[in-house]
Amino acid sequence: MSLQGNALIGQSGGPTIVINASLVGAIEAAEKHSEIDRFFGAVHGLTGVLNEQMIDLFREDDDLIRKMRYTPSAALGTCRLKATEEDLNRCMEVFKAHDIRYFFYNGGNDSQLVCHLISELAKGSDWDMQVIGIPKTIDNDLAITDNCPGFGSAGRYAAWAVQCAARDAMAFGNAEVLEVMGRDAGWLTGATQCGRREDWMGPHLVYLPEVTVDPDKFVADCQDVYDEYGYLVVAVSEGFNFGESEVATTSEELDEFGHARLGGVAEALAKMVEKTVGVRCRFDKLGNLQRAFSPCMSKVDSDEAYAVGQDAVNRAVAGETDIMITIQRLNSDPFEFETETTSLMSVADVTKEVPEDWINEEQNGVTDEFIEYAMPLVSGAAVELPEGLPNYPVFQKHFVDSKLQPYERKK
Amino acid sequence: MSLQGNALIGQSGGPTIVINASLVGAIEAAEKHSEIDRFFGAVHGLTGVLNEQMIDLFREDDDLIRKMRYTPSAALGTCRLKATEEDLNRCMEVFKAHDIRYFFYNGGNDSQLVCHLISELAKGSDWDMQVIGIPKTIDNDLAITDNCPGFGSAGRYAAWAVQCAARDAMAFGNAEVLEVMGRDAGWLTGATQCGRREDWMGPHLVYLPEVTVDPDKFVADCQDVYDEYGYLVVAVSEGFNFGESEVATTSEELDEFGHARLGGVAEALAKMVEKTVGVRCRFDKLGNLQRAFSPCMSKVDSDEAYAVGQDAVNRAVAGETDIMITIQRLNSDPFEFETETTSLMSVADVTKEVPEDWINEEQNGVTDEFIEYAMPLVSGAAVELPEGLPNYPVFQKHFVDSKLQPYERKK
Repeated sequence: MSLQGNALIGQSGGPTIVINASLVGAIEAAEKHSEIDRFFGAVHGLTGVLNEQMIDLFREDDDLIRKMRYTPSAALGTCRLKATEEDLNRCMEVFKAHDIRYFFYNGGNDSQLVCHLISELAKGSDWDMQVIGIPKTIDNDLAITDNCPGFGSAGRYAAWAVQCAARDAMAFGNAEVLEVMGRDAGWLTGATQCGRREDWMGPHLVYLPEVTVDPDKFVADCQDVYDEYGYLVVAVSEGFNFGESEVATTSEELDEFGHARLGGVAEALAKMVEKTVGVRCRFDKLGNLQRAFSPCMSKVDSDEAYAVGQDAVNRAVAGETDIMITIQRLNSDPFEFETETTSLMSVADVTKEVPEDWINEEQNGVTDEFIEYAMPLVSGAAVELPEGLPNYPVFQKHFVDSKLQPYERKK
Repeated sequence: MSLQGNALIGQSGGPTIVINASLVGAIEAAEKHSEIDRFFGAVHGLTGVLNEQMIDLFREDDDLIRKMRYTPSAALGTCRLKATEEDLNRCMEVFKAHDIRYFFYNGGNDSQLVCHLISELAKGSDWDMQVIGIPKTIDNDLAITDNCPGFGSAGRYAAWAVQCAARDAMAFGNAEVLEVMGRDAGWLTGATQCGRREDWMGPHLVYLPEVTVDPDKFVADCQDVYDEYGYLVVAVSEGFNFGESEVATTSEELDEFGHARLGGVAEALAKMVEKTVGVRCRFDKLGNLQRAFSPCMSKVDSDEAYAVGQDAVNRAVAGETDIMITIQRLNSDPFEFETETTSLMSVADVTKEVPEDWINEEQNGVTDEFIEYAMPLVSGAAVELPEGLPNYPVFQKHFVDSKLQPYERKK
């Protein structure tokens, strides 16, 4: 028998261009289940749960919800919170106080771990509830799933941006280094190669964080490309590394998960190219737009994001728990998928790197197999461009009344 | 009587998203004039003239030319060349050797100066020719003309990018500083405010290079915005300045025109916001994509660019010379324009800044008059988005035979 009660959803970690499609998929599925009395949205993810900052999603206008499906970046707000045991216990208190029987958390591998810990806690308590993770990351580094919602649109932006920046470098006969997000996994950087339809087009060289680059080989590769095509476009992951002959790029600041804040690699490499190849070399960081630039929303990505949100709710009501929804690819051309599941433990805190045999022998690009994998994900325009500038909606935010004492979080 | 002979066109300075529309406008106009025997394109602007690197544009496929109209960045190649007297004399030799009676140069105020100097030289020589400048700059800082082709599309990208980045900052409750191109004139930075439809939306604060910002006021403004909206988005021109209390941002490197290479202001300001307002502050530089990112091509901008290219050729054949084509706005809503002309001297090396009364009293944004001016220019999608990634064409490049000794340029 399905549980009767309220549901809660949160968005976590770096937003994506399609993360709200998952939210809307979940809302629209939840509306069809009489088991779900009220559907709450946690404001700023787990932070909102801890502080009972939750809004009543069933009270939002249907028209606004439909528009939200194509609005970039986390509409509920997001957070990067490393939950402590005390935090997790507080979550349970909030769930009980608000009769929350269904919890959905939409995020990357850090967030799936949180999800799993909550699931464990619930199982060991007297509070029956279903906990389901919804995949999301532009990094595409979640295990098991064919790909991660958010990746396709980020890849579409990154590939297109590199194509356009390459035209600018070609017009000058210059060099250009572009820095793409991706700390440990080079999926997004590799995706930029989807825009290279001919050998003379950029990006000529593509370096993933999975590869330790030899500085001499790097310089020789750059020189060869410049000599051959009269310009040079290099796409590098922010996790680019020369191994022990380090580029001085990593900042000393750490983020909330203890990861180093990365950045600056493109600038360092551009200086190196100027010095060695002797050609003016500019650099661009694709930056935060990779997870927010909505004109590049990919249709496949948007459809996937909606489907995983919807499926999470349907499966939770059907009694499934402690799982993350996954994408199962059925066909690449035309692209077809179905949603499947995996245990939260199988994805929690695991990073899926680009397989070695999808990186070319020269280690300065990806193989055709990679392109065949990524191309359908970065294809298809999800929305028509508006005449003017877009007018993104915000939720009206009908807040749920607090029922507990304020929570003082220990730092 | 019109001159009979060949025509030559060059693209100069920073490319734009629509610069090729001007080229195609010129080619398609030239095809209709029997006075123009052959139409050459200079490869990399004036550099191509000096080295007799020219291609025969009438031999390019019509279908390719039609596609080129919507292809970003200078298809002929561009240059940043400060022409010496010797260079200009060499140009005259090349014109004579190749029977060039019509010269068109598509660029900003540096390029219009070159154009004027060539015009003067031709007038004082025994070589009759018509010289016409075609306006182009994302900076929008050419005098006389209502606006500059290239600005509208760059503005559309910048405004949209700031809107999207603002959603990302809002999702975290963070601050974000975005750096927009614009050395001395804040048109492009001001245009980002077109995306701010409600007070709570970013960019909340917009700083143009025309303004000397008081550091204390800057911090107070940032604090106020953050306190009111729970997030903060600041758009600054790369020419942002605190006057004497300088931000350490200007690089010591100089470009080919002796201008300082700018950059780094967003990073410096982000650190300042983190320190003073005490909130995490990220930064993004919109970078080279401002002049190349074709998905944001504005229809008005693309139409204008085509029209100025077309008009330059028509007027040259009709006997006009030593002029630049200008845009005359007839109506803002719906936007209507016609092409006019001004003397090259009136625009050469002149920078049109944003008028003081289009900057708000607080000096942290632009006025409604600015928005009414800029909004139609950043509106309208010029092209539908392709299903996959675009496949930008390149010219087949049928090179014209050299007729002179190679040119050794003195550095």
